[in-house]
Amino acid sequence: MTGESETFTVPARRGRATRLGAGEAIKIINTHGTQVVDTWAFSAEDLTEFMSNEHMRATLGKLWPAPGDALVTNRRRPILTLEEDSSPGRHDTLIAACDDYRYGLLGCTEYHDNCTDNLFAGMRQLGLTPPECPSPLNLWMNIPVDAAGATSWGEPLSKPGDYVVLRAHMDCVVAMSACPQDILPINGAACTPVEAHYRILGR
Amino acid sequence: MTGESETFTVPARRGRATRLGAGEAIKIINTHGTQVVDTWAFSAEDLTEFMSNEHMRATLGKLWPAPGDALVTNRRRPILTLEEDSSPGRHDTLIAACDDYRYGLLGCTEYHDNCTDNLFAGMRQLGLTPPECPSPLNLWMNIPVDAAGATSWGEPLSKPGDYVVLRAHMDCVVAMSACPQDILPINGAACTPVEAHYRILGR
Repeated sequence: MTGESETFTVPARRGRATRLGAGEAIKIINTHGTQVVDTWAFSAEDLTEFMSNEHMRATLGKLWPAPGDALVTNRRRPILTLEEDSSPGRHDTLIAACDDYRYGLLGCTEYHDNCTDNLFAGMRQLGLTPPECPSPLNLWMNIPVDAAGATSWGEPLSKPGDYVVLRAHMDCVVAMSACPQDILPINGAACTPVEAHYRILGR
Repeated sequence: MTGESETFTVPARRGRATRLGAGEAIKIINTHGTQVVDTWAFSAEDLTEFMSNEHMRATLGKLWPAPGDALVTNRRRPILTLEEDSSPGRHDTLIAACDDYRYGLLGCTEYHDNCTDNLFAGMRQLGLTPPECPSPLNLWMNIPVDAAGATSWGEPLSKPGDYVVLRAHMDCVVAMSACPQDILPINGAACTPVEAHYRILGR
């Protein structure tokens, strides 16, 4: 496609996925400013090749990507470039997607919406099943790390309308989950997950 | 078993794996003091459940485990406890196992021994095939992280004979690779990979 698409919604607590052709980009918008969006990218040709934080950190030499950085797969090939970021740039690559096990450990006794199931549900809307839930790029998730290696659960540093633009190096599928975490303050002090939005940008 | 087994070798640049019953432990020895040992653990019942750094960091609230810490799987269940650590305790959970792609990016034009292939070869000696190469617990690998999130390739802080003891919470398979990295100084300034050793400890 050329130009910019209509605006799509990632509903609060839910997942969505979209195909992205090589050269196209996705603009992911933190509409309310406090919402973490777990993000994954899979090669359209072979879903076992996907964006991988542990390979990305080795290539980039840092915990969080910045504009201009190529995000690599588990085969160390660029799949997306972080082209623009209007936020302070604090994202997370350290923490696994939440899952029902996680909410059980946090005291929930009934099923809790979670990013892992959202990944599978979002991909299923495209008729796809990911081979696993890779460690996500957690957009706007703020996990401060001190010099001794201790991590903490921060609130997002982003403001309403902040966005990132991720441009595809190969035909791929990008999946997103508006994280349903409402026990820890990673989606802001109010612990209220909300929706996010995205648009597809042409070459 | 009871007591302590004979001493087994993880040869330089190679991988080995061993079964560990619930309650047994493995003592992994950095015989020469400078060798990184990439380490994995898989549930013996189901190899798709394995020790997972991104889940472990969420549980522990830090980048590196310390004595007493339970190391959890991708289903957030303890699989091993780091029971003893005679070294300064600097290990790595951030960096993917090296692979042939990695050495290609570092300029190698021919096949280079690597921890990913060592994992598969070590497991194959037990008749097992892991479903993937999970992000390893890189024993003694020293990846300093600064406040801005930048990482660097440090030399091990360990000394000859340093060891860790990992005790099993469930029947599992522990795999180890004596990392063949000889381009970056992660196995010491001499960039010379050497062997490591291990023993099995009874309940």
